[in-house]
Amino acid sequence: MTPSNIGRFKLKHTDGAARAGELSTAHGMINTPVFMPVGTQGSVKSLCPEDLENIQATIILGNTYHLYLRPGDDLLAQMGGLGRFMRWDKPILTDSGGFQIFSLSDLRKISEEGVEFSSHIDGSRHFFTPEKVVAIQNNIGSSIMMVLDECVPYGADRAYTAKSLKLTTDWASRSRIFYPPGTGNQLMFGIVQGGFFHDLRKESALQITGIPFDGYALGGLSVGESKEEMLDIMYYSAPLLPVDKPRYLMGVGKPLDILEGINTGIDMFDCVLPTRNARNGTLYTSLGQVNIKRAQYARDEQALDPGCDCYTCRNFSRAYLRHLYMARELLSYRLNSIHNLRFFTGLVAKARQAILEGRFSGLIKEYRGIYKI
Amino acid sequence: MTPSNIGRFKLKHTDGAARAGELSTAHGMINTPVFMPVGTQGSVKSLCPEDLENIQATIILGNTYHLYLRPGDDLLAQMGGLGRFMRWDKPILTDSGGFQIFSLSDLRKISEEGVEFSSHIDGSRHFFTPEKVVAIQNNIGSSIMMVLDECVPYGADRAYTAKSLKLTTDWASRSRIFYPPGTGNQLMFGIVQGGFFHDLRKESALQITGIPFDGYALGGLSVGESKEEMLDIMYYSAPLLPVDKPRYLMGVGKPLDILEGINTGIDMFDCVLPTRNARNGTLYTSLGQVNIKRAQYARDEQALDPGCDCYTCRNFSRAYLRHLYMARELLSYRLNSIHNLRFFTGLVAKARQAILEGRFSGLIKEYRGIYKI
Repeated sequence: MTPSNIGRFKLKHTDGAARAGELSTAHGMINTPVFMPVGTQGSVKSLCPEDLENIQATIILGNTYHLYLRPGDDLLAQMGGLGRFMRWDKPILTDSGGFQIFSLSDLRKISEEGVEFSSHIDGSRHFFTPEKVVAIQNNIGSSIMMVLDECVPYGADRAYTAKSLKLTTDWASRSRIFYPPGTGNQLMFGIVQGGFFHDLRKESALQITGIPFDGYALGGLSVGESKEEMLDIMYYSAPLLPVDKPRYLMGVGKPLDILEGINTGIDMFDCVLPTRNARNGTLYTSLGQVNIKRAQYARDEQALDPGCDCYTCRNFSRAYLRHLYMARELLSYRLNSIHNLRFFTGLVAKARQAILEGRFSGLIKEYRGIYKI
Repeated sequence: MTPSNIGRFKLKHTDGAARAGELSTAHGMINTPVFMPVGTQGSVKSLCPEDLENIQATIILGNTYHLYLRPGDDLLAQMGGLGRFMRWDKPILTDSGGFQIFSLSDLRKISEEGVEFSSHIDGSRHFFTPEKVVAIQNNIGSSIMMVLDECVPYGADRAYTAKSLKLTTDWASRSRIFYPPGTGNQLMFGIVQGGFFHDLRKESALQITGIPFDGYALGGLSVGESKEEMLDIMYYSAPLLPVDKPRYLMGVGKPLDILEGINTGIDMFDCVLPTRNARNGTLYTSLGQVNIKRAQYARDEQALDPGCDCYTCRNFSRAYLRHLYMARELLSYRLNSIHNLRFFTGLVAKARQAILEGRFSGLIKEYRGIYKI
């Protein structure tokens, strides 16, 4: 790919608000809509790079907060970046660490300058500024960087949310000044906040989209709100984002949430749900959710999802998967994660195909029947 | 393979006491010396069947005690046997459960009839007889069955050991009567006990080799004795076993122990060491042991063992392996297990080649230098 292509987003087709596109990055092109498996600290839990290729992941996510603390971004820079370190040569998106600082770490202290926090690992004190977070992501060498934002907790009142929104805009602006368009081969996305207030979402979107980012994200969702509140903000906010740039819904969600997101015109998704639920024995199939520990599967010789092409479903029975889960075998985590992630990558691939063929509304209707929640 | 081949053991070459052979089983032929990865309860911890093929495992071990308790041998029979259940179509050896009953379970009560014990999982009471243990292994459908024995604890006195030896012989005899030669397509091995007394080992060997088994094992080693005591019994006992049958040293051991075993004329080995140590970050390499958590590896870009052909060494740096270990990532267990098992299968393959070429004494001398303990 020539450097001039990097960041180019081509819409191939639209179907209602749903979009099928192509995003070019320094590490390859991504077909959208896309689901990004979460590789928190340099590993999508239990999976190796071959597994990720086999489930047809085209981009994965790394967490800036975790990678900064361990193994450290300076080490990653020395190793040639995260991709080379973990032997993943396709695109990587790194978040800004904002969400983790506000959910994992203790004793955080926010100022206009940045945010001070304690490591959840050893309690050590650290200070993140918008500029530092970009520098860390430069060291990590991701394909797409996210700017530092304040992720407002669910239930925050209007006054707090409005004040926070301004801080997030200020930080976004400083991030882009620190790393102007065309600086390197990493893309940079801005994040819209505004909590659960329509007018604040609109205000944030206006401010953030006024800064020339390569893509725009909706943050602050999936933080404890009801499904109705989440859908309300998604359907309200997505159209506020530019048509000609990729749109990313951060941290969402369940299979149907993702289809609803696509239905609002979102292009990119990430969520820990498929891997975390895999480790808890909750598996997604084309016929609905399966709790593999249930006794009914003890002697069930069928594949978990007979329609699935993943390694797990091509090789093992529900009975074996249940046994591995009940015996707490390490292989259980991997086989379940392979399947759940393939379900998610397969779901967005199906959505893309449906958009290209103008039948996305049929697809979402079908899944609203299978996945009611 | 025609059924008449099953159980045939062909010596291809000897080099001193060391032997290179071929053992035919219902599920394929095994080149000996061979190392058998331990798949306790239907899974070699963290590995899938493809991993096992890639590390060139040719036979794995399953634990009768564990499989009987979970998922249950009746379930395995219904699923077409353990191999089909876990998608491993090559040979499997199952132990008799004796060692686990005497090391894991509580409140065991031994009688001439058999042994009563409590499950380590739920405390439920169970009773194993020699005949029942064979029937369980019939259900499991392994290629090689082991007879029930009493594994005498280290430090047992002469009187106890002598009495126990007679019980083990009686149980071995009942096992073979219950499943006479030629009954089915499963092989059956007897086990020599006798603790750390030469004359009792000799007595046990005489009695056990008087029963027409398909192979003979040395049990009761690696139970807490010193290295000198173990080597003493190994070097004393191996020559007491028939030349024309495969010889199996149960539960041993470290890399050098295995080479010493081969040097005494042993053909088959199993041990949890490579997988257990992998999970603890202790890795075996051609240059000696590596504790991957050590800070010196934090920025080490070399392969763990540059001379190794395993997936781990072909793809990842010591720095990445250290990071995965320090971050307690699930992938750490798998990558480390792949490497350690490949080290063990590679070690016995090297030993076999050396025997075929008449230079085994040089090989063991080399490893006595690398692995002093």
